[in-house]
Amino acid sequence: MFHDEHLFKHIKDSFDRQGLMQHLGVELKEVKKGEVTLYMPFNKNLTQHHGFFHAGATSALADTAGGYAGYTLMPEGTEVLTVEFKINLLAPAQGDYLEAIGKVIRSGRTLTITQVDVYAYAEQKQTHVALVQQSLISAHV
Amino acid sequence: MFHDEHLFKHIKDSFDRQGLMQHLGVELKEVKKGEVTLYMPFNKNLTQHHGFFHAGATSALADTAGGYAGYTLMPEGTEVLTVEFKINLLAPAQGDYLEAIGKVIRSGRTLTITQVDVYAYAEQKQTHVALVQQSLISAHV
Amino acid sequence: MFHDEHLFKHIKDSFDRQGLMQHLGVELKEVKKGEVTLYMPFNKNLTQHHGFFHAGATSALADTAGGYAGYTLMPEGTEVLTVEFKINLLAPAQGDYLEAIGKVIRSGRTLTITQVDVYAYAEQKQTHVALVQQSLISAHV
Amino acid sequence: MFHDEHLFKHIKDSFDRQGLMQHLGVELKEVKKGEVTLYMPFNKNLTQHHGFFHAGATSALADTAGGYAGYTLMPEGTEVLTVEFKINLLAPAQGDYLEAIGKVIRSGRTLTITQVDVYAYAEQKQTHVALVQQSLISAHV
Repeated sequence: MFHDEHLFKHIKDSFDRQGLMQHLGVELKEVKKGEVTLYMPFNKNLTQHHGFFHAGATSALADTAGGYAGYTLMPEGTEVLTVEFKINLLAPAQGDYLEAIGKVIRSGRTLTITQVDVYAYAEQKQTHVALVQQSLISAHV
Repeated sequence: MFHDEHLFKHIKDSFDRQGLMQHLGVELKEVKKGEVTLYMPFNKNLTQHHGFFHAGATSALADTAGGYAGYTLMPEGTEVLTVEFKINLLAPAQGDYLEAIGKVIRSGRTLTITQVDVYAYAEQKQTHVALVQQSLISAHV
Repeated sequence: MFHDEHLFKHIKDSFDRQGLMQHLGVELKEVKKGEVTLYMPFNKNLTQHHGFFHAGATSALADTAGGYAGYTLMPEGTEVLTVEFKINLLAPAQGDYLEAIGKVIRSGRTLTITQVDVYAYAEQKQTHVALVQQSLISAHV
Repeated sequence: MFHDEHLFKHIKDSFDRQGLMQHLGVELKEVKKGEVTLYMPFNKNLTQHHGFFHAGATSALADTAGGYAGYTLMPEGTEVLTVEFKINLLAPAQGDYLEAIGKVIRSGRTLTITQVDVYAYAEQKQTHVALVQQSLISAHV
């Protein structure tokens, strides 16, 4: 498991430098090659006018899960930037926390395409609340 | 100008109930029929790992500008929900603040389509940092 | 299997009225509740300037697969319209034919969300060439 | 005007090699630096099941208008490929012909972002039927 710990740390180092992720209370949960899972516990600072998770908070979570999923497959010494993403909001995002699972669909030399599913958890119940397609670019730094 | 003040207040009442907008420090700047402008001053709580505005913060800002632009044209007693949006990130979002201008492209009975432009301002310089297409639905409450 | 034949015929009747599908040589291959598969054999009338399948042909195929997948779950007496879709082109679409598999992700009262995967087949080799997210609306006729 | 004729011919040479554009009866109407206009006259070979222009035909037209708009700004010796696009269908596409106007929003070293508006013309009446955001990549050939 040394390799995975190395990978987790590689992602965590970058994740911890993202002011927004800390501000929104997002947690890095799981890191695998080509797949990253994030959690975002409910908090009134994340709401829209009905008290649900704001689509903007859901989007920020999903963008980050997809971005780091792509980053796990990029060569060291490169950085990841989001080119674009598209989110469909499938159901009101209500619950104790949101989980976003980002997965790489295609990893190219220049562009990486990911898909992200976001689920809301309320007690025992899981609801699929958002679906995302995202394009990333790797940049030399 | 009574009418515009009424419209501004109508949007402001809803905007002020959005925990996320307050948490991100977003300001409601201008409200017209079919067009809403928001400002988001720079803050380290809004950053990604390079210290720029996080794509997730830009997305949350843009989603809200488009959503309220659509809401200005919806009948009283209805609510607005984002169905989906697509964002292209055109340039790194660096600067003193971001401005998002949401405009209604088509206002239908069920669906409203908006377009949002996001600009970064650094001293005298304006940069076009994001372009969004969004679909909204009006729901009876 | 009576029910599936009924469903297949229901979709086929509509499919056969689409001039574009005939003009592009698309075949309705399989119909299940919430899932439709289409084939599009290669033909020089479908090409872009390098002789691959044109992204526009791939898009037309994918839009139709998703649209009919949604239609299988809509009540009789309604019609399906595409609200919007987003397509990522993952690899050059080269081969003997394209296969598009449309699946319903969420079936709501007003809106239906689908996902479509498009594969190219060249001899034994399958390539994932496109990924689509689509929103449909059911309209009374 | 020599320069424009050169640019028109440059685009036309590529356009004429697209089997799909000929098969759909699309005409290259106008070419400027960063902007291309295409026409698609109505024909039953372009229809969906209600006899309107099929969303897939509208998409193919829009993808091509955006792609060539981007191509006008790319260095000679490179080729253009669509990375992804997103289309909102604003109204039923009915009329004598469709006009697609593709414009470059941002022209980068690797990626080009375009926006495409599609209008339907029925006698004197113009209807805005689709809005597209597209990402292109330039590839060396």
